Amino acid sequence: MSSKLIAIVAGVGPGTGASVARKFAATYPVVLLARKPESYEPLAKEINSNGGKAIGISTDVADSSSVKNAVQKIKEEFGNDVGAAAAIFNASGGFRRSPFLELPEDVFTSSLAVSATGGFHFSQATLPLLLKGVEQKSKYPPSLIFTGATASVKSNALMASFATGKWALRALSQSLAKEFGPQGVHVSHVVVDGVIDIERTKEWMKGMPKEAKLSPEGIANDYWYLHTQPVTNFTWEIDLRPAVEKW
Amino acid sequence: MSSKLIAIVAGVGPGTGASVARKFAATYPVVLLARKPESYEPLAKEINSNGGKAIGISTDVADSSSVKNAVQKIKEEFGNDVGAAAAIFNASGGFRRSPFLELPEDVFTSSLAVSATGGFHFSQATLPLLLKGVEQKSKYPPSLIFTGATASVKSNALMASFATGKWALRALSQSLAKEFGPQGVHVSHVVVDGVIDIERTKEWMKGMPKEAKLSPEGIANDYWYLHTQPVTNFTWEIDLRPAVEKW
Amino acid sequence: MSSKLIAIVAGVGPGTGASVARKFAATYPVVLLARKPESYEPLAKEINSNGGKAIGISTDVADSSSVKNAVQKIKEEFGNDVGAAAAIFNASGGFRRSPFLELPEDVFTSSLAVSATGGFHFSQATLPLLLKGVEQKSKYPPSLIFTGATASVKSNALMASFATGKWALRALSQSLAKEFGPQGVHVSHVVVDGVIDIERTKEWMKGMPKEAKLSPEGIANDYWYLHTQPVTNFTWEIDLRPAVEKW
Amino acid sequence: MSSKLIAIVAGVGPGTGASVARKFAATYPVVLLARKPESYEPLAKEINSNGGKAIGISTDVADSSSVKNAVQKIKEEFGNDVGAAAAIFNASGGFRRSPFLELPEDVFTSSLAVSATGGFHFSQATLPLLLKGVEQKSKYPPSLIFTGATASVKSNALMASFATGKWALRALSQSLAKEFGPQGVHVSHVVVDGVIDIERTKEWMKGMPKEAKLSPEGIANDYWYLHTQPVTNFTWEIDLRPAVEKW
Repeated sequence: MSSKLIAIVAGVGPGTGASVARKFAATYPVVLLARKPESYEPLAKEINSNGGKAIGISTDVADSSSVKNAVQKIKEEFGNDVGAAAAIFNASGGFRRSPFLELPEDVFTSSLAVSATGGFHFSQATLPLLLKGVEQKSKYPPSLIFTGATASVKSNALMASFATGKWALRALSQSLAKEFGPQGVHVSHVVVDGVIDIERTKEWMKGMPKEAKLSPEGIANDYWYLHTQPVTNFTWEIDLRPAVEKW
Repeated sequence: MSSKLIAIVAGVGPGTGASVARKFAATYPVVLLARKPESYEPLAKEINSNGGKAIGISTDVADSSSVKNAVQKIKEEFGNDVGAAAAIFNASGGFRRSPFLELPEDVFTSSLAVSATGGFHFSQATLPLLLKGVEQKSKYPPSLIFTGATASVKSNALMASFATGKWALRALSQSLAKEFGPQGVHVSHVVVDGVIDIERTKEWMKGMPKEAKLSPEGIANDYWYLHTQPVTNFTWEIDLRPAVEKW
Repeated sequence: MSSKLIAIVAGVGPGTGASVARKFAATYPVVLLARKPESYEPLAKEINSNGGKAIGISTDVADSSSVKNAVQKIKEEFGNDVGAAAAIFNASGGFRRSPFLELPEDVFTSSLAVSATGGFHFSQATLPLLLKGVEQKSKYPPSLIFTGATASVKSNALMASFATGKWALRALSQSLAKEFGPQGVHVSHVVVDGVIDIERTKEWMKGMPKEAKLSPEGIANDYWYLHTQPVTNFTWEIDLRPAVEKW
Repeated sequence: MSSKLIAIVAGVGPGTGASVARKFAATYPVVLLARKPESYEPLAKEINSNGGKAIGISTDVADSSSVKNAVQKIKEEFGNDVGAAAAIFNASGGFRRSPFLELPEDVFTSSLAVSATGGFHFSQATLPLLLKGVEQKSKYPPSLIFTGATASVKSNALMASFATGKWALRALSQSLAKEFGPQGVHVSHVVVDGVIDIERTKEWMKGMPKEAKLSPEGIANDYWYLHTQPVTNFTWEIDLRPAVEKW
C-alpha cells in the first residue's frame, strides 16, 4: 500500500503559485514554501479550513541550508519515507528592467540565485521525494514542474537580469527531463507568455477585455493536466497565452 | 440557441487519427476524412454503433476541389450554417528515408502536397466553420489542431522529404495561431516525438517495455485537453514523448 | 590538376542575388539563373565587361525540366565534367501579405513551389557538381548556400504564404548540411533579418539613416566568408541584420 | 584622430582563447585575462616577441572587484580614455558531467558564477570601453563576442551544471545585442559545436581524421570575421562544427 503522497510548491505568491497550490490541495497535502510567512499563511489557512491540508515553511530557495531545513521539516511532518506526487517551482528573483550599464550587480546575481541556483536546490531536495513517489506507485507520474516566462525563450533589451535566470532554469528543466523521465518522474517547463490576472496587475492593460490576461486558475489546470499525463505521453514544454495576445 | 457543432478529423488512419476521432465523438458528431473509404468506414461504423455519430467522406487534402467537395457534403449533412468545435489535421504524405540524390521528385512533392498544401486547404475549409463555432458560443473555444512530429523541429540527414512538409505545416500553424487566436479560434501544433503504439509498429522496439511507445489514446486526451483550454490560456505547442525516450 | 570550377546563382534580381554573383564572379565563372532574361542579362553583361565570365540561363526553379535543361546548358558551356565551387539559392516565390481566408490557392502553392520545391530541384541539380568540386580539390569547400529571411524562423499573422516555403527551405538546408557536410560540401542557411537596401526599397523607412538597411554587398561578403570556411569549421546558419534593427 | 584601440580576451587557455588573442593581436594591443599567470604569460611573451603588444592581468571574472581591478590596470596601461575594438568572453567554469543528485552545489554554482555572472561582470566592464571605441570611430564596429557551446542550445542529461551557465550566457548576449547594436557595438554569440583540436583533446576521437576536430585558428578567423562585419550587416549568432560532425 502506498503511503500518502504530498505536493510541494515553491513561490506561493498571490498568483500562479497560490492557484496551483489550491488545485493540487484538492488531491494531496501541500507544502507551501515562501520566504516570508505572510506569503503562505493566509493560503495555508484557507486550504486547511476548506478541508484540505497545507503547511507552510519559510524557505529561501537560493540558500541550500534553508532548503535542506525545509526538507527536514517536511519529514518531521509527513514521515521520513514521505514521497512526493508533485513539486512545483514557481519562485522568481527580483529582477529589474534596466539599461544594462545601470543594472546593479546584486540585482543580477539575486535574480540568478533564485531562478537558477534556487531551481537547483529545489530539484535536488525534491527529486528524492519524487523518486519515492515512483516507488510508491503514485497514481500519476510524480511531476517536477517549472514556471517559465516569455523571457525563458526570448531575451529582450533591458531584461538581462530576468532572462539569464529564466534561460538557465529552462536548461535545468530540459536536462532533468532527459535524466529523470526514464526513471518515471515527469519534468515539465511552462512558458507563461502574457500578463497574469492578479491583484498586482489589476491596473495593467486598461481598456482591454478581462480575457486579455492569463487566468491563474487556468494555469493551475494546465499544471494539473501535465501532472496527469501517463508515462507514455510526457510533455516537456507548453506555452500559455491569452487568445488575444500578440506574439 | 447554438446549433449542434461538429468535429472534423483529416487523416484517420489506425493510430492518432482514429483515437482522436473516438475521443471527440463522445461529445460531437464527427466527420472523418481520408483518401480511401477503407480508412474511415470501420471507424464510422464503430462510432455510430456506440451511440455516437460519424460520417466519412473520401477526401484528398492535397486537392482543393476534393476538400471543397467535402465541405459541400458536410453542409448537406449538417446544414449550411453548421459550425465546428474542432478541426484536426492529422494527414501525412508518403515520404521516404533516402539519400537526397536518390529521392524521386514525386516523393518530395507529394509529401509537401499533403503536409503543406493539404494543411492550407484543410485550414481554409474549416476555419469558416470554426469561426461559426465562435459565433454560436461553443462551450470550448473552437480548435484547429495540427499533428507534428520530431521532424517538425529537427531536420535530419535523409529525411528531407518528411521534414520540409512538417516544418511548413508548423509555420502554417504558428501564423494561424497568431491570426485566429484573437478571433477566438485556438490553433495548436503537437510535436509527437516517438513511436506510436499501433498495429504497424508492433514489431518495432522489441525488447522495450510497452511504455516505450506513445499511446494513441493518450495523444487523443492531449488533443482534447488543448481543446478545452479557455481563451485566457491557449497553448500553441506541446511536445509528447514516452518517459523513456532519448531526446 | 583541377579544371575550372564554377559558381551558380539562382534568383539574380537586383539585390542579394546580383551582389552575390558579382562577388563570386571575381573568382569563378558564374552561371546566372532567373526566369526572365531581363533579370540576368544586364548583370551578365556587366560581369563579362569587367573581366569576369558570366552566362545567364532562363530557368524556372519550380520546374524540374527547366532546371535539368539549365544543367544541360551548363555542361555544354563548361564541359561534362564541370565541378561547382558554389551554388547559391536566392529565389523566392511571389507570396502575399493577406488575411488567411483571402489568400488565393495559387499564391500559396506558387510560393511553396519556388521556395521548397525550387530548393529541392536546385539542390538535386547542383549537388552532383559540388561533389565534383570536392573530387577536384577545390581551394575552398564547395558551398551550397540558401537565402532565408526573418520568416524562416518566425511565422507571423498574414504571412503564411511566405513562411511555409521559407521554413521548408530551412528544413531542407539543415537536412542537406547533415548529409553532405561529411562528404565535403558546406551547406549553409542565411537568415536575412531586415530590409535590404535596393532600388525597390528606396522609399521604405524614410527618415531612418542609410545604415538601417542591410547592404547587399555586405550580404555578398558574408556568403563569400561562409564559402571560405575550412572543413574543420563549417557554419550552418548565420543571421544578418542592421545594427539598429529591433528584434 | 582616434587613439589606439585595444582588444580584451577573457579566458585565454590553450585553445580558442589563445588563438583569438593571437589573431586580434595582429591589429590591436591585446589584454589577456585569466585567473592564473601561467595561463597568459607564455602567450603574452609570444605575442610581444612577435612584434605585437600584449599584457596579462590575473583576473577572476566571477568576482566583480577582480574585474574592476583589471579595468583599472588597463587604464593605467593604456590611458583613462582607452577605447576597445573588441572584447571576447571565452571563460568557462569547471562543470562536471554527473548524475544530478550527485552534483555538488559548489560545482553547479561555480560554473554559473563564471558563465553567467562572469559574463555580466565582463560585459559591464568592457561595454564602456567598446562605446568609447564607437566614439573614437573605430575602423570596425567594436565587438563583444561570447563563446558558446553545443550545451548553449541543448541541455542534455547529466550536463545541467554546464548547460545552465551556457544558456544564461546566451540570454545575456541576446539581450546585449538588442540593446547595444543600435549604439554601434556588435554583440555576437558563437555556438562551438564539436571538439576543438588542442593538446588536451589529442587523445580524443582516435581513428578519426584530423578534420574531425575544430581548428582553433579557424575559430579565431570566424571571430575576426564577425568583428569586421559593418553596421549594416551584424550577425548575432553563428554555429561552428567540423564538416564530419554528426548533429
